[in-house]
Amino acid sequence: MSAWSAWLAAQAGAREEAGLRRVLRPRPASDETIDLAGNDYLGLSRDPVVTAAAADAALMWGAGSGASRLVTGTLRLHEHLEQELASYTGQPAALVMSTGYHANLALVTALADRDTLVVSDAHIHASLVDAVRLSRAEVVVVPHSDVAAVRRALVASDKRALVLTESIYSVLGDEAPLVELAAVCAEHDAMLVVDEAHGLGVHGPGLVHGRGLAGLEHVVVTMTLSKSLGSQGGAVLGPPALVEHLVNKARPFIFDTALAPAPTAGALAALGVLRARPELVDVVRRRVVDLAAALGVEPPAGAVLSVSMPSPQVAVAAQAAALEHGLRIGCFRPPSVPDGISRLRITVNAGVSDDDWGRATQVLVAVVKEHA
Amino acid sequence: MSAWSAWLAAQAGAREEAGLRRVLRPRPASDETIDLAGNDYLGLSRDPVVTAAAADAALMWGAGSGASRLVTGTLRLHEHLEQELASYTGQPAALVMSTGYHANLALVTALADRDTLVVSDAHIHASLVDAVRLSRAEVVVVPHSDVAAVRRALVASDKRALVLTESIYSVLGDEAPLVELAAVCAEHDAMLVVDEAHGLGVHGPGLVHGRGLAGLEHVVVTMTLSKSLGSQGGAVLGPPALVEHLVNKARPFIFDTALAPAPTAGALAALGVLRARPELVDVVRRRVVDLAAALGVEPPAGAVLSVSMPSPQVAVAAQAAALEHGLRIGCFRPPSVPDGISRLRITVNAGVSDDDWGRATQVLVAVVKEHA
Repeated sequence: MSAWSAWLAAQAGAREEAGLRRVLRPRPASDETIDLAGNDYLGLSRDPVVTAAAADAALMWGAGSGASRLVTGTLRLHEHLEQELASYTGQPAALVMSTGYHANLALVTALADRDTLVVSDAHIHASLVDAVRLSRAEVVVVPHSDVAAVRRALVASDKRALVLTESIYSVLGDEAPLVELAAVCAEHDAMLVVDEAHGLGVHGPGLVHGRGLAGLEHVVVTMTLSKSLGSQGGAVLGPPALVEHLVNKARPFIFDTALAPAPTAGALAALGVLRARPELVDVVRRRVVDLAAALGVEPPAGAVLSVSMPSPQVAVAAQAAALEHGLRIGCFRPPSVPDGISRLRITVNAGVSDDDWGRATQVLVAVVKEHA
Repeated sequence: MSAWSAWLAAQAGAREEAGLRRVLRPRPASDETIDLAGNDYLGLSRDPVVTAAAADAALMWGAGSGASRLVTGTLRLHEHLEQELASYTGQPAALVMSTGYHANLALVTALADRDTLVVSDAHIHASLVDAVRLSRAEVVVVPHSDVAAVRRALVASDKRALVLTESIYSVLGDEAPLVELAAVCAEHDAMLVVDEAHGLGVHGPGLVHGRGLAGLEHVVVTMTLSKSLGSQGGAVLGPPALVEHLVNKARPFIFDTALAPAPTAGALAALGVLRARPELVDVVRRRVVDLAAALGVEPPAGAVLSVSMPSPQVAVAAQAAALEHGLRIGCFRPPSVPDGISRLRITVNAGVSDDDWGRATQVLVAVVKEHA
């Protein structure tokens, strides 16, 4: 047995023993199961306007964009999406990437180096953690949403500083103290990076906009096009000088094929639906509040309900029980949880019919009662 | 002026002074210009079978996949594409990602850590360079295609070792000594990682297959779906134990939304076209040989012709002259070139008509004569 085979086998054995082995479960295009596990919060990935726009773009522009953005991969479609994203969120400029992960890698690695301090919230997404590691910046990880700790870290350093946060955190669904963070950053000449992956759409143009911070020179936004916008891709939004810097310096942007036409057009159409039907935001909010009450948990700021489970094994069992009753829900276990606590992760989806939503609520109440 | 604004302005000034400022140039869906700059080598991104499959998938499955692969983002469509990729390239298993960049990041970071030695060719793609940096492995960069140097690096270390190569290198279009590298890796219990970004399609099932190395346990392949397959995304191909390891450990796979339905179906349809029309490979090869002869350069192993230019400024001028005559070609300048030499990068595309190809050849001969 080779050294690599032995190593892979040992790693697999350790996962199995810890109850942490993950398996892919391919799903069909449609079935009777209600999906409350994905991040398609507004149900736009299946909206007929959005899917038609994606399909038309594939026919008109091709299945791929054919090259990286700086070669010949930039389509007028990308430019149009960038203008609309900036306009909707109140930002001066936007740059679209092929994934949200790329957006975070591109932004942080193009700004931060060994001469930079990065102050990072303990709960930030894996893509930001990886981005900081790749940048080789000095990093200070502060306790979750602890503004005083951010201030202390900034005071203690003379370096150019980036502060990393999400507007709505992915696993617990809580909201960051954006106004306070932006004020501390302004005080100390630092840049605040806000990942709006879970804030855009669920809060209309996002929480940076909602809290009056859109367009401030020192508040930069990253986002994904694959959650509320129902498509694929990511974007960085901020001052034009920042976007120009990324175009010239961000390796994950420069050395990657441009986002394909279909998801580009899908995200653009989803923005149009969001503008035309702002009531979708209210549907999500009402369902979040109602479901939280039914499950006896605090209503989160976002559209993710998190229910703690006593162990990874029980979390998996609860998830399986929900599936038996026709409901897909998420199950987060280490290392996908910031605090080591396994939990059910239930996402609210405005695309589910009222009847299905009522049925789903009943199933969830029973499953949580049995397993929590 | 804030510290960040001043820093961005200084960076922009330095770029301008060095003649290295890059600008995005959005293109329309179609025009009279011939594109010999992209990587759509077989012309499949605009093939009607491929675009129809992408469009149908958006309508049937949605504009996005809605979640990460381990949550509910894995579609039967992904599974089907993985089976077909493995079957076409002679590999036991495949795992699809949302970009080729993700495929390289995922593979290297899931295998390598501080206890690993990575032996890396000096010309490997930025995504592999970033992957190694992110992994924090010990890295030895060896001179380009220097098998003896790879052997020396492996002999000098007791660590589990990865050797990184591309089958066809992106900028110069030359072929790696794959058979020799695989033999050295077997001798020293190392794993050979071959990025087939520019080999797949141009060489049918790729050069790992072509050199009789497909399916060997110690030879792992990464690829993109955005070049010869005309779509978007990436994949890792190798033993099932490796794929299972990536599903469980690779952060750029786990924490990323699954590839959207349209590009997934587009790549799948492109594989079907490649199987049905193997003569596309011959068209590309013939054009490469003919154009190399017309330009007086050595015919490369891949579909990229590289023509050295005396300076970044002259390279840009030559590119502009070609565009004036209706031809888009690439222009690679530092830092996108491994040796600091600016060059024209001309990619052969089987999707261009014979008439357009003849016209393109005439323009290129004149432009190169004037600028080289």
